Amino acid sequence: MELLKNRIIKDGKIKEGNVLKVDAFLNHQLDIELFEKIGEEFKRRFEGKEVTKILTIEASGIAIACIAARYFKVPVVFAKKTQTKNIAGDVYTSKVESFTHGKVYDIIVSKEFLNVDDKVLIIDDFLANGKALLGLVDLITAAGAEVIGAGIVIEKGFQEGGKTIRDKGIKLESLAIIKEMSVEGGVIFS
Amino acid sequence: MELLKNRIIKDGKIKEGNVLKVDAFLNHQLDIELFEKIGEEFKRRFEGKEVTKILTIEASGIAIACIAARYFKVPVVFAKKTQTKNIAGDVYTSKVESFTHGKVYDIIVSKEFLNVDDKVLIIDDFLANGKALLGLVDLITAAGAEVIGAGIVIEKGFQEGGKTIRDKGIKLESLAIIKEMSVEGGVIFS
Repeated sequence: MELLKNRIIKDGKIKEGNVLKVDAFLNHQLDIELFEKIGEEFKRRFEGKEVTKILTIEASGIAIACIAARYFKVPVVFAKKTQTKNIAGDVYTSKVESFTHGKVYDIIVSKEFLNVDDKVLIIDDFLANGKALLGLVDLITAAGAEVIGAGIVIEKGFQEGGKTIRDKGIKLESLAIIKEMSVEGGVIFS
Repeated sequence: MELLKNRIIKDGKIKEGNVLKVDAFLNHQLDIELFEKIGEEFKRRFEGKEVTKILTIEASGIAIACIAARYFKVPVVFAKKTQTKNIAGDVYTSKVESFTHGKVYDIIVSKEFLNVDDKVLIIDDFLANGKALLGLVDLITAAGAEVIGAGIVIEKGFQEGGKTIRDKGIKLESLAIIKEMSVEGGVIFS
């Protein structure tokens, strides 16, 4: 998606350790007009697929998921991150290791909101090592629901997440795939 | 807003301790069609007011703020909750005491995304003791920006937050104000 790639080049900031900061438009300040174009593009990429629900993960995935949901005309469910020890039996749960923070946390979704008839599209802002996405796939599988695919705004193509997900046969659509990045050389897309 | 009140009566669950669970449509599963009506209603309530930015707080405020932002045609900024001790100097920060969790946490916004020319509308899902809302007002004031008002989906009218905010001269628009609630008697609106 050219509009998105140009925006990343214009407003993204590269920090040491393969960190790409896009908080000017994607995950702290949110450019809703851009999100509408992103939502439209996800709809185009999953054209003809039946989707009954969009699943994302707090916090920054919520924004993209909500705007995308307008084009699919379905509700959004967001998985909650928690470090609570006692999780009641009325939730599906999975463990996720954070790339950014190096911690392991639980993600949960109420059983009420994912069920066996659901055809679920996962939406998230970033894909790096794929751990969060795999956690979301776990929740959907636990519910007996169907994973229709995953729509990602920015994929770090030089990390293993994309390959892991595609190797599982999941339809993965990333709107911008970064081939390599460095403070000196900037961002190069696939 | 009748549509919202009816939905609260239909799908809200009252728990002991004045807890109203609306996670079927407002803060876990998100009914985007309802959110569009809510966004339109906020636009109507703040008609004629110049707004340059919507400010909310993670996580569940983000969803409402993003859909509302479509009607105001402005970006959203969401304050992040953090318990990090070392907060860099490039953020505005305030302390908030959580009603639900009984903990104090910091909320932060990058200085980049709130500035002296901004006319800020605060959007959030719930207003109870008003601490989160006051924290957001702090951030706006620290930036030298103007608080245009606050749009709240559900106000617990029997707690002090609404009065505190209105006493400060802030235009507060709550779409459903709960006068009283109990497990036995259900929800009664103002």
